Order: sequence, then C-alpha cells, then structure tokens
Amino acid sequence: MNKLLYGVAYYDEYMPTDRLAEDIQMMQDAGINVVRIAESTWSTHEPQNGIFDFSSVDRVLDAMHEAGIHVIVGTPTYAIPTWMVKEHPDVLAVTKDGAGRYGARQIMDITHPVYLFYAERIIRKLMSRVSRHPAVIGYQTDNETKHYGTAGPNVQLKFVKYMREKYESIDHLNAELGLDYWSNRINSWEDFPAVVGTINGSLGAEFDRFQRQLVNEFLAWQVSIVNEYKTEHQFVTQNFDFDWRGYSYGVQSSVDHYAAAEPFDIVGVDIYHPSQDELTGIEISFGGDMARSLKQKNYYVIETQAQAFSHWTPYPGQLRLQAYSHLASGAEMVAYWHWHSIHNSFETYWKGLLSHDFLPNPVYNEAKTIGADFARLSDQLMGLSKQNKIAILVSNEALSAMEWFKLPDGRNYNDIVRWLYDECYRLNMECDFIFPTTSNIEQYKLIIVPALYAAPDELLHRLNQFVEQGGHIVYSFKSGFANDQVKVRTTVQPAIIEQACGVNYNIFVSPNKVGLRGTINSESGSVESWMELLTPTTAEVLAYYDHPQWGEYAAITRNQYGNGEATYIGCMAPGEVVHHVLRAALERAELYGANQQLPPEVTVKTSLDSDGKEVRFYLNYSAALVQYSYTYTSGKELISGITIESNSLQKLEPWGVHIVQAQ
Amino acid sequence: MNKLLYGVAYYDEYMPTDRLAEDIQMMQDAGINVVRIAESTWSTHEPQNGIFDFSSVDRVLDAMHEAGIHVIVGTPTYAIPTWMVKEHPDVLAVTKDGAGRYGARQIMDITHPVYLFYAERIIRKLMSRVSRHPAVIGYQTDNETKHYGTAGPNVQLKFVKYMREKYESIDHLNAELGLDYWSNRINSWEDFPAVVGTINGSLGAEFDRFQRQLVNEFLAWQVSIVNEYKTEHQFVTQNFDFDWRGYSYGVQSSVDHYAAAEPFDIVGVDIYHPSQDELTGIEISFGGDMARSLKQKNYYVIETQAQAFSHWTPYPGQLRLQAYSHLASGAEMVAYWHWHSIHNSFETYWKGLLSHDFLPNPVYNEAKTIGADFARLSDQLMGLSKQNKIAILVSNEALSAMEWFKLPDGRNYNDIVRWLYDECYRLNMECDFIFPTTSNIEQYKLIIVPALYAAPDELLHRLNQFVEQGGHIVYSFKSGFANDQVKVRTTVQPAIIEQACGVNYNIFVSPNKVGLRGTINSESGSVESWMELLTPTTAEVLAYYDHPQWGEYAAITRNQYGNGEATYIGCMAPGEVVHHVLRAALERAELYGANQQLPPEVTVKTSLDSDGKEVRFYLNYSAALVQYSYTYTSGKELISGITIESNSLQKLEPWGVHIVQAQ
Amino acid sequence: MNKLLYGVAYYDEYMPTDRLAEDIQMMQDAGINVVRIAESTWSTHEPQNGIFDFSSVDRVLDAMHEAGIHVIVGTPTYAIPTWMVKEHPDVLAVTKDGAGRYGARQIMDITHPVYLFYAERIIRKLMSRVSRHPAVIGYQTDNETKHYGTAGPNVQLKFVKYMREKYESIDHLNAELGLDYWSNRINSWEDFPAVVGTINGSLGAEFDRFQRQLVNEFLAWQVSIVNEYKTEHQFVTQNFDFDWRGYSYGVQSSVDHYAAAEPFDIVGVDIYHPSQDELTGIEISFGGDMARSLKQKNYYVIETQAQAFSHWTPYPGQLRLQAYSHLASGAEMVAYWHWHSIHNSFETYWKGLLSHDFLPNPVYNEAKTIGADFARLSDQLMGLSKQNKIAILVSNEALSAMEWFKLPDGRNYNDIVRWLYDECYRLNMECDFIFPTTSNIEQYKLIIVPALYAAPDELLHRLNQFVEQGGHIVYSFKSGFANDQVKVRTTVQPAIIEQACGVNYNIFVSPNKVGLRGTINSESGSVESWMELLTPTTAEVLAYYDHPQWGEYAAITRNQYGNGEATYIGCMAPGEVVHHVLRAALERAELYGANQQLPPEVTVKTSLDSDGKEVRFYLNYSAALVQYSYTYTSGKELISGITIESNSLQKLEPWGVHIVQAQ
Repeated sequence: MNKLLYGVAYYDEYMPTDRLAEDIQMMQDAGINVVRIAESTWSTHEPQNGIFDFSSVDRVLDAMHEAGIHVIVGTPTYAIPTWMVKEHPDVLAVTKDGAGRYGARQIMDITHPVYLFYAERIIRKLMSRVSRHPAVIGYQTDNETKHYGTAGPNVQLKFVKYMREKYESIDHLNAELGLDYWSNRINSWEDFPAVVGTINGSLGAEFDRFQRQLVNEFLAWQVSIVNEYKTEHQFVTQNFDFDWRGYSYGVQSSVDHYAAAEPFDIVGVDIYHPSQDELTGIEISFGGDMARSLKQKNYYVIETQAQAFSHWTPYPGQLRLQAYSHLASGAEMVAYWHWHSIHNSFETYWKGLLSHDFLPNPVYNEAKTIGADFARLSDQLMGLSKQNKIAILVSNEALSAMEWFKLPDGRNYNDIVRWLYDECYRLNMECDFIFPTTSNIEQYKLIIVPALYAAPDELLHRLNQFVEQGGHIVYSFKSGFANDQVKVRTTVQPAIIEQACGVNYNIFVSPNKVGLRGTINSESGSVESWMELLTPTTAEVLAYYDHPQWGEYAAITRNQYGNGEATYIGCMAPGEVVHHVLRAALERAELYGANQQLPPEVTVKTSLDSDGKEVRFYLNYSAALVQYSYTYTSGKELISGITIESNSLQKLEPWGVHIVQAQ
Repeated sequence: MNKLLYGVAYYDEYMPTDRLAEDIQMMQDAGINVVRIAESTWSTHEPQNGIFDFSSVDRVLDAMHEAGIHVIVGTPTYAIPTWMVKEHPDVLAVTKDGAGRYGARQIMDITHPVYLFYAERIIRKLMSRVSRHPAVIGYQTDNETKHYGTAGPNVQLKFVKYMREKYESIDHLNAELGLDYWSNRINSWEDFPAVVGTINGSLGAEFDRFQRQLVNEFLAWQVSIVNEYKTEHQFVTQNFDFDWRGYSYGVQSSVDHYAAAEPFDIVGVDIYHPSQDELTGIEISFGGDMARSLKQKNYYVIETQAQAFSHWTPYPGQLRLQAYSHLASGAEMVAYWHWHSIHNSFETYWKGLLSHDFLPNPVYNEAKTIGADFARLSDQLMGLSKQNKIAILVSNEALSAMEWFKLPDGRNYNDIVRWLYDECYRLNMECDFIFPTTSNIEQYKLIIVPALYAAPDELLHRLNQFVEQGGHIVYSFKSGFANDQVKVRTTVQPAIIEQACGVNYNIFVSPNKVGLRGTINSESGSVESWMELLTPTTAEVLAYYDHPQWGEYAAITRNQYGNGEATYIGCMAPGEVVHHVLRAALERAELYGANQQLPPEVTVKTSLDSDGKEVRFYLNYSAALVQYSYTYTSGKELISGITIESNSLQKLEPWGVHIVQAQ
Repeated sequence: MNKLLYGVAYYDEYMPTDRLAEDIQMMQDAGINVVRIAESTWSTHEPQNGIFDFSSVDRVLDAMHEAGIHVIVGTPTYAIPTWMVKEHPDVLAVTKDGAGRYGARQIMDITHPVYLFYAERIIRKLMSRVSRHPAVIGYQTDNETKHYGTAGPNVQLKFVKYMREKYESIDHLNAELGLDYWSNRINSWEDFPAVVGTINGSLGAEFDRFQRQLVNEFLAWQVSIVNEYKTEHQFVTQNFDFDWRGYSYGVQSSVDHYAAAEPFDIVGVDIYHPSQDELTGIEISFGGDMARSLKQKNYYVIETQAQAFSHWTPYPGQLRLQAYSHLASGAEMVAYWHWHSIHNSFETYWKGLLSHDFLPNPVYNEAKTIGADFARLSDQLMGLSKQNKIAILVSNEALSAMEWFKLPDGRNYNDIVRWLYDECYRLNMECDFIFPTTSNIEQYKLIIVPALYAAPDELLHRLNQFVEQGGHIVYSFKSGFANDQVKVRTTVQPAIIEQACGVNYNIFVSPNKVGLRGTINSESGSVESWMELLTPTTAEVLAYYDHPQWGEYAAITRNQYGNGEATYIGCMAPGEVVHHVLRAALERAELYGANQQLPPEVTVKTSLDSDGKEVRFYLNYSAALVQYSYTYTSGKELISGITIESNSLQKLEPWGVHIVQAQ
C-alpha cells in the first residue's frame, strides 16, 4: 500500500450486539483506514467439521469496502476449534510438560497431519472466498506462530532423522555433543532417547534449533498456499512477536525471525511496551529496528497497545508520541489491539481503543488527531529509508545456548542485548540488527556484539576480517566461547576473536563488590553478573577490576587490529560505563555527532524520504517541555508546517514530536 | 440446647492409652459440657467393607452421659478408609491437577456413586446406633465440606447437562460466555471440551458455581438421611469454614454458605485466628457475623483454637477474651480443636487444650475459669439477639469472577472485603452479612458493598431502589462491572448503579505514587491496587486523585438519590480514608453514636437478651489497662455482678471483658 | 596406600582430542599421584547390550602406570546407558513425582532386577579386566549413591513386607503410627495404600528409613562383588556426599552413612564448600569430622573443588589452605573434580583444575606447590590420628522426623546441627560425630546433641547414664520429643532426658521479639525459630526469656545429675550465646585450654603422628596476616622446617598454614 496505514484488529464475531455500522462510523472519525480480521475465529468460520460459515467475514469486507477501509485477512489457524480436539485429541502438542489440554490458543502440534489437513482446507476456503474482494489488501498467515514446545513421539522421530542427516555417524554425533558425559552416549540410532529429559546442553540446543525450524517450515507452507490466491497488489505478512517479559523485548527464543521472514512480502510485528512513567521509547525502537532488519525494509506494526492494561493506559500525549515513534523506526502501519475491549473470556483487561462501553474516551479522542495527521502527512512519510552505519549482531543460537548455560545470577541473553541496546538508544546511535547468516555485515562501520556465546568458526573469522579491514566492533563477555554445537572451544578465550581483541582469559568469576578503575572510570556502580579476568596480549586496557584479589586483571580493553579496532567488555559493567565505551567507539569510528549531544529526554531518528531528503523525528520522552538545538540544514517541521532554521533552539512539548524535513 | 455449650472435639480413637475416665474428670473440672466425636474415623468404625465397629462410639457416649456431658455425633464421611480406595480407586476426585492419590482427607469425588453408597450405609448404621442415646444432642454432617476440585469425566458430563439446561441453545451459550473468542466456540454439545483447561473466565466461573452447587446437593442429601433418625430435641449442624489464609477469614470460595446452610437446624463454624500480639478480634467478629447471618440466628463455634500453633499459643487472658468475643457475636457454643494434642500423623503441632503430656497447663487452667463462668452465666447469655442496621453484601459470584480476573497486584475479593470490614470493626459498626439472594435487604439503613464485580441486573436495580427509598450504600470500586455470566456490561460504568451513584468512568489505571486530595483528605498513605478515573454526573466529589496526569478525576464521590445516598470509593484508598468515609456515612444514616467514640483498644458488641434488655460486651484487645465511658442506662456487669452507673468511667483489665446488662 | 594421595578425576572419554600424554605430563608437574576413572561412563564401556569396550580404561591404566600415577577404578553404575532404558523403560525409578525420564544420571530404581543384572555384569567384566593391573590401587563402587526417591509398585510391595515383618500385627502398626487419625487406619495388609501420598509423618518417616536401607543393601551388594576380585593391597571405597545446600553440609538425608560405610575399607567423600570471601573452613571441617567418624579412621576426599563455579574460584593461597585443612581433619587423599573443564553437556561451568583451554593457570600453578609439598611431607603426615574428647550426636531418624514436622520458620535439622557445629568450630573444639547405634559413646567427656527429635527410649536412657557417670551433655531444644516411630511421647518433656536435665515444659511458642536475660546474657540478637517455655525442677537457670508474657520461663538451664552435667538450650539462641554456653561446658568438662584463646581467624587442628607426637595445623582463614601464640612444647614447622619455640609469637600469612610437630 502506498499510504500510511492506521488500523485496528476488528472482530465482528466478538461483538455483544450488531454494531458494525457504528463502529465503522467511529473508525472513520478516527482516521482508521485498515482493519485486520479473522485470524483467531476458526470455530466461528467452521462450526462443524467441513461446514463453513464466512458470513461475518463477508459482511465486514462489504461494509469496510463501502467505507473505504482496507482489510487484512488472517488465516484462522492459530486457535483450533473444539470439534477438532474432540475428534482427534492428538492434535494437541505433547511437550516436555506432558500431554496438552484444550483451552488456550496455540496448543496444537504444528507438524501434525490432522491439523495440517484441516488448516489447509480452511485456508483455501477462506482465500478463495476473499481474495478477489476489493477491500482486501493483504493477508496474515497464522499469528505469533511458535512451536509451542511440541515434542511428542512424532516430533522426536523427525528429530532423530534430522540428527542422522546432520551428523551422519553415531561417533560424530557423540563427539560433537559430548554425549559420553554421564553415560549419555547413544550407540545406535534406535537407542536415541526422548530428548525432553536431556541434561546435555548441546543436544538440548540442537532440539531448540530443530523446533525453530519447524516454525519456518510451517509458515513457508502457509505462505505457499496463500500465494496461490493472492492478487497482484496484495501482500502476505506475518505477525512476529518478540520475547515476552511482560512486554515485547528481545530476540524471540522460539523462532528464527530472520529465516522465518524470508517467504513474506512484508514483516509485521507486535510491539507492546511499558507506558506511563516508564515510557522511554526503547522497546518501540528495539522492535522497529528488528522488524526493519528482517527484510531490510519497512514494516507494519500489526499490534500495539491502545489502552491495554491498567498500568499502561497512556498519559495524554503518549499515544501520539508512540505512533510517530513507530514511523520514525520505519513502520508504515500502526494498528491497535484492538478496536474495542472484550467483554468475556481472557483478555478482558487488555483494553482496546474503545472501552467496554464503546463510547469515545480520551485515548480514542487522541487517536482521532493521529489518524488525521497520518492522512495529511502520508505522502511525505511513506517510503522513508535508513542508511545506518551501526549494527547489532544477535543470534538465536547464542540465546538458546545461554538458556542451557545460564549466568549465575539468572540474567539471560536478552538481558545482555538490552544492557547494550539501551545505551545505544540513549546515545541516539541508530542501528540495524544483523544475524549470523547476514551477508551484508561489511556495509557497517561499527558492530555491537552482545554475548555471541555459540557461533561457528566462520562467523568469528569473518568478524576478525571485518575489523582487519577497518571496521569497529564492541564485544561483550561470553562472545566466542562455544561453537555452533555449544561445545566450548579448547583454545584460549575469547576464542578466535582474541586475535582481533588482543586479549586472553581462562578464568572467570562472579563479581562481588567489584568496581572498575582505569581510563574509562565510573563511580556509578559495580560490576554485576559475570566477570572474565582478562590479560591483554596487544590490547590497551580501558579499565581494570577494582578488587583486592582480582585487581591485576583487565575488565575492558581495546585493540588495534589491521585497520580497525575491537573493544572487549569482559564483564557486566554499569550502564554508565557502557555509555562511555560506546561513545568512545563512536568517536573512533567517526560516527559521533550532533545527535549524541541532545538533551537526554530527546530521542532523534533519521530517515531519507523518497526524494533523498533527510527527515528527522525529534521525540520528547518526558512530561516536561524540553529544548534542543537543531543543527542541520534548515527545514520544515511537517506536523505544524513551521520552518526550522539551522542552529535554532527548538521547544518540544511534553511527550511532543517534531518531524523536520531538511530542505 | 437451652444452655451455653463449652466443648472440645474428642477422639477416643486417637488416644495412645485408655484415658477416658481421666479425660472426663479433667473435662468436668474445666466445665466442658459437650464433646464432638466420630466425624473423621470411618476406617475405625468400618475397618473392612461392611464390617462395622462402633465400640469406641458406644463407650464414649455411655461415659459422657454418665458424666453429664453432651455429645454431638459427626458423620465420618470426609475421610475415606483405605479399603475403599483399594477396591475402587476411582472414588478419588480427579481435579484439574489430574488423578488424586490416597493420603489426605477430603480427596474423594463427592458425586461418585461408590462413595455415596458407602457413605449412606455408614451414616445409617451410625445413626441407627446412636440416635436414641440420651447423650446425643445433635449431629454434624461431614466436616468442612467442599467440592475438592472434583472435575473428572463424570463431573464434566454432569456439567454439560447443567449447561444445556441453563443455556438451552448453543448460540445462547456461546453469546453469553463469549466463546467465539480465541476459537473457543462450541458448536455442538458433543464438542464440549473438558472445562479444566479453559481460559474463558465466564465458563470457568460457571464451573465454579456448578461445583459449589455439588456441595449444596451433597450436604442436603446427608441432612435428609440424618433427619430420618434425629429425635425431637436433636439438631443437625455442619461445620462451615471460611477462606483459609493461614487463619479463617473471608467468603468461602468453594461453598455458597448461604444456600448450603438452608437444610441445617443451626450453623456451626470453624474460627481460627491470629493470636498473641496479633489478636484483634477482627476474625472472630467476621466469622461470627457471617455465621449468624447465614440463618439470621445464633450459631455454634464448633472449632476454635486452644493452644494451636506455636505462634498462636494465647497469652494469659486471651483464651477468656476470645471465648466472650464469640458470645458477643452470637455464638451459643465455643468448642476447641481439640481436647488433647495429637501424637502422630499430621496435626501434631496443632495443639489442643491439653499438651501431649495430658497434664494441666496454663491454657487448660484458664479454660477452667471460662467453663465455670459459662455455667454460671448461661441463663443470662443464652438467647441473645441482634438488630443490626448495617449490612455488608458479599457474593460468591463476585469472588469467583475476581479470581478469573485478578487485580494487577494480586489482591483478591476477600482482600477487599477485609479492607472494608476492618474499618467497620474499628468503628464498632456492628453488621450482618447479606447475599445476592437475601430477601431482607430493606431492613437495613446502611449497606456496604465490596467489589460486587459480577451480579445480575435485578440485584443492582434493587440496590438503586434501596437508595431511592432512603437507604445508604457505600460501594467499592469494581462494583457492577460484569453480569452474572461475568460478561462485562456494555453500558457506562459503574453499570446500573451509576444511576444511584451519580458517577461514570470508562478508564481505570494502576496507581503508582497516587495520593488523594479533597474534603476527605489523608496524609496517611497512597492509593493501592486499582483506581477508576471517575467523572461525577450528579455526585459530590469527596476526594480527587493527587497525581500530575490523573488529577482531574474523582476518586471518591457521594450522591443524593431519591431519599438516600450512595457513596462510591473508586480506588483502594488507605484504611484511614475508608474510616473517614464510613464514619461520614454513619453520620448521614443517623447511626453514629457513643460506640464510635470508645478508645481504639475497646470493641463493643450489643445484643438484646430474651427479656429485651440490652447486653453490651466491652472487650479490651490490648495488653494494657484501658478506660472507657459507659454512656448507656445503668446496668450490671454480669461476670463480677457489680453495678455500672450511667456515664461512669470504667477500667478494663488487659485482655479484659465487661458484660453490661442494661436495667 | 602408605602415602599422601593428591589426585583428580580423569575421563579420557570426555576429551575433545587425544591428550593423554600431555595430561599425564602436566599431572606429573603438579605432583598428582592418583586418578579416579570410569565411574560414570557405562555407555562408553558397554555401547550395546553385552558388547564391551574397555579400551579407554586399558590405555589410561597403562599410561598412568608408566608415569607412576595410581588409579582408582569406579564401577560405572550410577549413570545408565540409553540402550538399557530403550529396552527396559521400567528401570527408571518411579518416585512420588511419577514416572522417571531419561536424561540425568541417578535416575534408576536401584532395586530393579534388570538394572541389577546389567550392573553386576559390567562390574564383573570391568573387575576381571582391571583387578590385576599394577596401576590399580582401589575401587569405588558407584558414586554418591542414594535411593533417588524410588517408590514404584515393586518398592511399595517390598515396603509392605518390611512393615509386616517389623510391626507383625495390623493393630500394632496402627497404634504405633497413629493411623486412626483422619481415617488412615489400615485394617488389612492388602489395603496398604501407596505410601507416596501419605500425610502421616510416622508412616512417611518409616518409608524414609526403608529407602535409606535400600541404599545400604545396594552398596553392600556391590562391595561383595568387587571383593571377589580385589587383591590384597587394593581397597574399596565409596564416594559419600553430604546434604547439598549449594555446597556440601549436613547429615545426608537419603543415606544412613554410618551403616552404609560398614562394608567399605575406607570412607571417601565429596566436600564442596563456599570460597573466596566466604571461605571459613567450617564445611571442610564438618565433612572431615563426619567422614573420619564413619569408620573411626582416616578417609579420602575423593572430590573437592579446584576452580569450580565462578563464585568459588579460589583466591591466591586458598587452594593450598584448603588442601592442608583436609589433612588436618584426617584426610589422606585430596582429589579434585576434575582434571579439566568439560566442553559440553551439563557441568561445563563446574570447572576443573585446568580450564577449557588445558593451559596452565593460576589455580593449576598453585596445585603444583601443593603436590610438591605433599610428596615431601608424606611420611610425616600419613597415619595421623585423633583422640577427641568431644562428640556430636547426629541421627538420620531425627532429621527425617523434622522434615515431616518442620520448624515454623522452615529451618530444618541440619540448620540446627550447623548452628551448634559452627560455634564448636569457632571455639576450636575438635569433635567426632556419633550416631544412635554408636557403641563408644562413653569414651567422650562432652557430647553435643542437636535436636534429637526422634529417638528410641534406650538411647535417651543411655545418655542419662552417660551424664550420671560423669559425662557432660549440651542438648538443644526438640530433643527427646518423639520416639523412633515419630510418636510424640506422652510423658513430660523433654522426655526421659528431663531426668538428667532437671527441666520440664509442655508449652512451646514461636519467638517474636524475644531476647534472653540471665547469667549467660547476650545483647547480640534475639531468639529465632523456636522456644520452649522451660520450668526447672532441679536445674540452674542460665538464661530466662526476655519478653513481657513469657518472661517467667527459663530458656537455657544446666543441671547436675550424678557425677555429670546436662545443659539444655530450649530455644534457637543467638550464636554468641551458644558460644558462651559451649565455652562454659568446656570449662566444666575440663577441656578448656590454649586452643580456645587463639585469634578468631586462626583454626587449629591437632593429631598424633605415628610416633605419638602431637602435630598441630594452624590455619589462617583470612586475607590478613595474623599472629598467634604457640603455647605447646617447642617443635618444628614441617613445611618451612623452621623450629618453633614454646610460647613464641608466630605470624601466619594471609590464607597461610603452619604444621607444627611437637618434639
């Protein structure tokens, strides 16, 4: 679609009374121009096995079309009907916790032929019904798809075959995974034990990888079916979601998003985030950077919060700030979960744009201003692009491996990602995400590498080469430690990358009242979670540990290697220290500039519009009026239409937004 | 019985040696005039299937009768014998956690015909043996009966039939419970999924209600059997227990006490409460008010603590204060769990009146004074009655619904009940409890309504009418929100009652550093748990929120409606604020008086004796000597026999009691 | 072996490459003279049912022999191969949590004939292969053997037979265990319910005892097989481990170590302990005292930590201090778990002497100095013996009973053991452990008795007699309360021992802001966990409770009885108070001396060498240099060879050690 989409999820099926006309009127008033329908209502559309009823789809499509509102149709496969479970109880996924039971959504075995048979049938029925309807602009396959821990006997059998194909020989398998340990050795493929009880982290991580691959296969299969029906101007998307920690943040542990995104036309995502006094924009930025990076292009925010939970209901001005923050990261659609608030069942307190009373309310009223602005600014804000020079390398394999080998204080991979990403955000260091299989690493000037705990040799060599050829890398502790099979490398650590980092260690300890001292100093906190006792070979020491016993060892180092530099942070240093380290890296990579000198409340995001002009979003993440210096070529603030002079001092209202298009 | 009963639970079966004669002698010394026997010793009385041995019952009955001690005989059905489980393992309740296993009591499926067959047989055997014995004054059916989560396939089948009868059509069922959501729709009765996995709060709450109904049916069935045997002067009671939070407090979630009490002659209850420095009398008062309200008449405290746990062993004087506190609420029996302390098994540290050594001890010695006083004062303290003008409306349906939709900080329905009840107690506002099906609402002048979250329309309309006709109501937040099927109402909130309350909201948030400001002010704390952003229509605002973003909204309001007034507390305000609100409501309902002006340590409870004279219990819940003004007609302090002049200053010993009978 | 052994666990099977030659060279450099092999690699040695491959054993034996390094061969039975579980899934132990699943070690039913058949076969194959090899000095049967909670139907059947044999009649069974309670009575042996669900503590504790007996039987069976093969100079040991609370401490709940040790030639143990700033030596001392006491002779530390976890990696000097601390308690072998750090699977972060890179590191370098010293001092430090006058009486039965009847604050038996043992350690009171079945109680002058909650009458009478004949005992609260069937005694408490203690109680409460006052006073804390309200009959009161309600009762008493004295500590008093009580007991038992007057950082341990000379280990458990007075006959410090004059002031380096042999 060549316009900004402002949308909601809409379920005529959930309405306590027939309100379609009133709802559409209120949507129009709010500038809503797209709705997402159908993806979780299989039991309504196929009330009995083989009996179909798409009347609610039909009537919504017709009414929306008449109102000029577009529709994205979801395949209804992520929540299975009661009749299917009664007929075939074995469609429920068997997990490490045992047999499943009916009730929630996302409980089936996504590899089960019974499920796949019925899923394919309803997809085809639905597609053939809607694909020619003029309201339909695209499709979503399934929703927030994951593997749901499926691990029953049929999945185990597939896994054994996968392992035989991958490792070929029993001896190779045992050696790579270290199965001799505690007598776990498998001496015949027939003896392969159910993997759900394994205590072997290498085997466990392989199973995690296998399960993630099931998701890729399932989604690609759905896309292939939908593609048979979709017309020229329609798209297929998926609603990816991030790790859930009470909100959306972090690499998704159950899906390899980078691989899974391949068959889709455009990436869609869920982004739910803290709000009220905890609204910082970090989660919006993280989710946006990740979504944009999956296919290196703009994306849709398919679900984000309107009122949502009682602790998220936005303060006046926040809904608007959030909407522009999504655009600033590259979103071309912002849609709310969901239109109204649900009157029964489970998500009653996950409130929509409307409350349960369907009346206008302060949040809806704020949405009306957003919808109007989106419509007015659509031409200028569509087709924005980014040319980031900084990337963060993340890895499902590293995440999975660190679940099997947790840090002593319970912090996990995404905690380390967040620890680094937060400081990037605070420094207005706009970045992309890259992945172990990314081909375009070399386009960046600075790469941040959180805890690349499990990685193949080639990747580490490639990163060395990147530095050698003039790139900058900032590594965290734990990087390089194990290979792709989560076998710890037998060489000196940090394995392979020690070449570029110019530093060694073979002892690591848990910090207990440990500070840092050195050129990058901090009085603002102590080391947490993990510390590696570093000895530089060629590196310069940025900080030593401040501790009576470990004081001789380095904590943070920087090394010139070829034409580039590698910084190694050997411990979970205080955020302020990370801030200094990243800032130094920015400077040395010649990326430091005006954006790093804004007041701390102000986030700036830069894009190029379709004419190649720079468009900057200035976002005030505070309840106070703040001032900032606009230091670029003079331009126009798009919302107000006011001209902004170069080097002028600008005022941003509480939770305010400026969009400055440089001339 | 037309005398005060002072009793213990007594199990000859648990005695390590034959001590019946010594025990009876010690009971007589302590004024014990009733024992409760037999309710948990099925395996002794029916050692093998169909082989009965009531010799321990016989010998206890004979010996007690000879000693002039009355006996209440329990049906032994709440703990099943080993042979039954070996013969029919399926008598164990299957719950949402899976199959049961033998060991604890209260583990059977109370609907299972095998269990019912054996239960009926032993009840009839026991009844036919004891009902003519002159020692027997009454019966207890089962004990602390609940549904034990029974939810196996047979219970599921009953439930589906119950649902079909209640909802009649599939479409009605799906619409009322919102089953379209997440594809939970049931399109054929045959498809009805096992309810134990449901995530639908409306369906879940229906199942809770159905399970509570099983308890009613089971108890009524037992009573009908016992009634065939009981003689003219015998009674049938049940030992009801309250929600267990380490002690007895709150509406029982698994039983609808009001309905379950119907077939019984008199209500019996468990009341266990904090002690030592935490003894306040609140739990005794709550339990008593509830017990008295179930049949609107006096009740028996069938179990309360003697020594009990190591953190409850009473300080000198507390056992006596507790005993009179029960009488002050309307109890006509106070009985301890239990006579001695148990030497094996599970409740070894739930100590009785005697320690394991069976010797006199300080607690037993204090009981001797109580027994003597009870005997002496029995004529004056029997047949007391109350004419409370205040009632608290509680609801199993609201409780259950709030379990499905918990407050964000985990507080539950009974936390809100307690938050209001505690302040009533501190204000010496004596109250009854009323229930959604209570017919006599109109006899009160002031009704307190905690979180009436799920309620039928008729009840809310009736409450509006109560106000219109001159009544006063104090509502808490969450009232009126959902209907009886836990479907959120689609009207403006607080639904229906907004008419009497003159206030609206459609946004609610979690408080975070929120105070209150207004005519009822408080510097003593902040709002917790929940806050509704109220906008008055016709109401007067008693307090606004003190918060930079939500400060425009009202927190507590009061509205004139017809001839009455409704106060609405939109948030979990600090206790002190509630105190002020309730006090204002008391004043406006013309119920404020001398009892509200006593020192905080002094609780007063008022009854009428059988001659219509006022009898007031003054209870000193502190370790200090306190003074209070006696402001009523001069009277006699019954324990000491001393005359109390009107408007005299009285001294109450630490943990002391005065019982003043006005002349 | 007539020399000090310094060793490591070594698994050629786990090595990522063939490193045997390099490893042996590095071992020789470090003075390693023994390795332990084979005990957890069944799946390598029997890759398929009945197909054996001991090539890794052969090659290690040959290479070690050539290098002069001894080998202890373990039977590989504690981790079963995959093929066995595939063939016979029922070898997995069924526990109270249900069926087992493959993955971890120690998951089988040690009573299952299939397991026993295969275990016997591989033991015989291995023994016949290695027993004549000159490298082999001994054997370890299995490893850290426990019952793994085995409780399936076959175990239940055995248990019923055990109970029938023990209790003979049903009536006796029911009476002793109190099964009438809550209808748990068993009226026919056929009705005996699965014990896993029991709530009867007496029955539960019987099952615990039965399960511990299964371990004894299993180990004795293994020893009997190995004994058929072992040659004259070889030994058989077992690696016992203590209760695991994140480190090794306390009586092992699943094994009766005293009985289990009987068939072995020498006791071996695991000792893992806190380190870095938490290194105190207490756990080393506890484990050593226990190990030495099992057979009243010296023992092997079969596993202790080298680098281990990130929070245990030793500070410089600590590894050496630890090694000598083991010798000081009577160890003649100190071996690390394990040689290298593991590259896959589960214990990757339980690091060995070498890191994953196999390079020398600071910990390995420190081991080199230890190995050299051990070799040099072997003659002088072998064959040390102790003649302690103090014993601590511990009991599996008391431990188990207190698991069924926990203290209100969750403290358990081993918490009470630790509370007393810690103060003994701080007072340099060297002690042995004794057990309910120990025959040599009378050789001691002072016995400490922590919480002897369940004990047979005879034991208590024997302790009374010990006092009467001149002995000193310090009892803690809870002693004497229940008999061996965990039936609370019906006599006055502390039952039976009240005779020697001269004190009574029948009320106990939970302390809440309770201090102590009296001749042994303390301002350093309050009573925790438990307090018995003591009334002395003949005892002297050492401390009363300081509390407004319980102040009349005694807390700590001492009683002259016959020629001896019994102190009774009725509450969990602050450590400082225990310190005073123990010190007074020491004085009165005429055991107080110079060792009690050392600086708090200095631990001293005394042995006699084979010539009868006293050898004292002075151990500095601090990071500071400390001074102490050497007050004994002048002697020689063995490590430095320097002469130590009597009454000289000595300096101990941080984490330093002196070994002074008196001349």
